[in-house]
Parts: sequence; structure tokens; C-alpha cells
Amino acid sequence: RRCHRRSTAMLDVPFPPFCAFLAALGLLCVAMTGTWCQHWRGGFSLDGSSRTFNWHPVLMVTGLVVLYGAAALVYRIPTTWSGPKLPWKVLHAGLALGAFVLSVLGLAAVFRFHNSQGTPNMYSLHSWMGLGTVLLFSCQWAAGFGAFLLPWAPAWLRALYKPIHVFFGSAILMLSVASCASGINEKLFFSLKNGTTAYKLLPAEAVFANTLGLLILIFGVLVVGALARPSWKRPDSDSLGSRQVRDALGG
Amino acid sequence: RRCHRRSTAMLDVPFPPFCAFLAALGLLCVAMTGTWCQHWRGGFSLDGSSRTFNWHPVLMVTGLVVLYGAAALVYRIPTTWSGPKLPWKVLHAGLALGAFVLSVLGLAAVFRFHNSQGTPNMYSLHSWMGLGTVLLFSCQWAAGFGAFLLPWAPAWLRALYKPIHVFFGSAILMLSVASCASGINEKLFFSLKNGTTAYKLLPAEAVFANTLGLLILIFGVLVVGALARPSWKRPDSDSLGSRQVRDALGG
Repeated sequence: RRCHRRSTAMLDVPFPPFCAFLAALGLLCVAMTGTWCQHWRGGFSLDGSSRTFNWHPVLMVTGLVVLYGAAALVYRIPTTWSGPKLPWKVLHAGLALGAFVLSVLGLAAVFRFHNSQGTPNMYSLHSWMGLGTVLLFSCQWAAGFGAFLLPWAPAWLRALYKPIHVFFGSAILMLSVASCASGINEKLFFSLKNGTTAYKLLPAEAVFANTLGLLILIFGVLVVGALARPSWKRPDSDSLGSRQVRDALGG
Repeated sequence: RRCHRRSTAMLDVPFPPFCAFLAALGLLCVAMTGTWCQHWRGGFSLDGSSRTFNWHPVLMVTGLVVLYGAAALVYRIPTTWSGPKLPWKVLHAGLALGAFVLSVLGLAAVFRFHNSQGTPNMYSLHSWMGLGTVLLFSCQWAAGFGAFLLPWAPAWLRALYKPIHVFFGSAILMLSVASCASGINEKLFFSLKNGTTAYKLLPAEAVFANTLGLLILIFGVLVVGALARPSWKRPDSDSLGSRQVRDALGG
């Protein structure tokens, strides 16, 4: 019996060390995106050249993946489960707002690059996925602010909207990392065209950026997995927001 | 009070109609992939040409997305929660095996196309993601078979492995739909190069295949969301496989 309990307890990793690992992985993704653009793609500028484009991957990975992941995981910190909720709500909304601002700046970088080069915007599947993800995120932020931070939002609305907000929280991150993967893939086909450094010859840059793409996907899958893990959720919460329902019903 | 209960009950969609909607969406994805390859990409053959490649998207979307999704959702059918479990396990394993066989054939199609054209294999991020997904799936299937279908697998092993199997079940589907999106994006850049039908001019084929990409992503997000939804899980199951733990402990 003790052996059986021990074998299932082995999997019961506490959230804090897992979170530290995720933070390290997220920072590695940001650092590798910056290194890719700086070392192989010519660095950064605001002149409308491909050096302006380079802000796009850095801002998207920092905002819509890593900072977004941090915002999503706030309520998995056990400290947030007791005491006043408002400070944690403000932290969650603040991190998400930071993520949103960075992703809008990331969109501005690629639109400015396209416009100054005479390239059409919004034709590739990557662009449809990416803009769709940012638009969903803007709705998610506005609806979350309206339902959970405005003090006059009725309790029934909070209870109704909470599972929708939770579902879209994970869905947007999945779409975001899928957009990153298609974007890195597309950028490598655009950039690695010369005889000696063609993508299909797998030069060092391709190995580096492919590895970056895989790490971003692993980060996204781990965050979505952490969000879904029952033992890391606030003990009294479930998908229908039982706490809010009870509050709403005065129970 | 009644109004509050009604507002949260509105979200409590039963699983069967949602499942029917998912089935229709999955079939639409398969039909659209076939239509894209047949109508715009020249149809299907086994001669090593791009018509051989065309099997790749059709087999991958059918196997690693739609049939995989069906396999993953078997245990969300309330009928599976009572009575003997073995028939449902066999159905789950059988659908997953079908999905695996189709995805291996899908890989064979693209390798045969590359080899007969002298194109290198396994250089793009799409190929790394896609092959990684299929390799993970092969481990998932073999480990699931060993732990859950071999009658002599010890109960503590089943209890230990179940949450891992559940996590990778969703993770593999996320990687699979991300691979599809990057693959469709890449294929459109390869194929739509001529002056009048360049991808950036957004011809009808691009709109059609971009829409297909979005539908595949929506299918994946909905399946992962359905798998995570607490009210659709078997009532006595949780992430640590409480039923198996109880069985293991003889409780």
C-alpha cells in the first residue's frame, strides 16, 4: 500500500518549482528569439527595413507567449487562494495588459515593414492565425475587465462568464504558440534562400530557430497542461465557478 | 435565484450534441483538405510527383487530427462510464491505432515525394514538429497498450501512468494541429508563386486553404477544451486516477 501511494505521490510535483522551470524556459525562448534576430537577421531598428521586422518575433514571443503564460498562471500560485482577491486580479489583468501591448507593438512592427516594402498584409495563414489570436485576446481582456474588475458587474454575470474566460485563456495560448511555429517556419523559408545557406541545407541558423520553435511549443503545452491540472487549481473552484455561483446564490 | 441557476445551466451543454458538432467540423476539415488537393493541386497518385505529396495533408488531417480527436473523446461518452471497460478501451486503442497508421502513411507520402524529387527531408520546423508529434504518438500508443490493455500490468503502474497518458493525449493533439497550420502555410508559399496566383495576391485557393487551417485549429482547440472540461469527465476520475488508486489500494 505505501508503495502504491508513493508511486502516485511522485507525480504530485508542487507548483512553485514547476513554475520556476517554466519561467526559465520562457526566458530562454525570449533570449533565443533576440539572439536569432540580432546574430543572424541583422539586429533591430525602426527604419522600416527587415531590422524593423525583427521586433515582430521578439515582441510576439515576449508578449503573447511568455508574459501571457505568466498572466494565465497567476491563480495557480497557492498564495492567491486566500485573503483579498483584488490585488491578484489586478496583477493578472496587469500582466495580460502588458502582454497585449507588446503584441500590438509586434503587429505594428510587421505592418510597418510590409508597408515600407510594398508587401501586402494579411494574406498568409500565419497572419490570419496571428491577427485572429490578438483579436480574441483583446476581447478576452475587455470582457475579463468588464466582468471581474468593474465592481458593479453582477455576480451571475461573473459566474456565467468565468468558464468561458478560462476556456479562451488556454485556447488563445494554443493559437499563439501555433502562430509562432508557423511564423518561424515561414520566416526561415523567406530568409534562407541562398545556395550555401538554403533552409533545406539546414545551416546553423535553421537548427537554432527550429529548436526555438520547438521550445516555444513545449512552453505552450506545459502552460496549458498546468492550467488544466486539477490539483493545481484553487481547491474550491471548478469549471462552472462554484464559488461565484454560491456567492451569487448567497450560499 | 432561479435566474442565476439558469444562467450557469445555459453553459452546461450536454456532450452528445457538442460531439455531433465536432464530428461535422472534423469531416468538413477532411473534405476541404481533399478538395484543396483534388481541385487546386492536381489530385492523387503514387508516382512520386506532387500528386503523391497530396496524400500527405489528407492522411495527416484525417489521422492525426480527426480520427485522433475521436479516439481521445471516447471516454467522454457517458455510456462508457458504467459496465465493462474493456470494449471501450479496445475502441479507444483501435481508433488511435487507425490514426497512427494513417499518419505513418502520410509521412511515407511526403518522404517518397521528397526522395523522388531529390529534396532533402527533415529540415523545416514543420517537419521537426510533425515527426516529433508522430514519434510522441507512437510512444503514447505503445505505453497505453502496455499499461492499460495488457492484463498483467500492475494497478500501481496504471494509476501512475494514467495522468501522464491524459496529459500527452492533449499535448499531442495541440502539436498536431500546430503542425497542420505550419504545413498548410508552407505548402501555400511553395505552390502559389506565379505572377497571377501568388500567395500574397490571396487567390481563391489561398482563401480556401487559410480557412481550412483556421478550421483545423478550431477543431483542435475544441477537442482539447472538451477533454479538459470537468463536467464531461467520468464523475469518479481525477488527474491522479482516483479509481485506479482505490483499486490498487483495494479500497
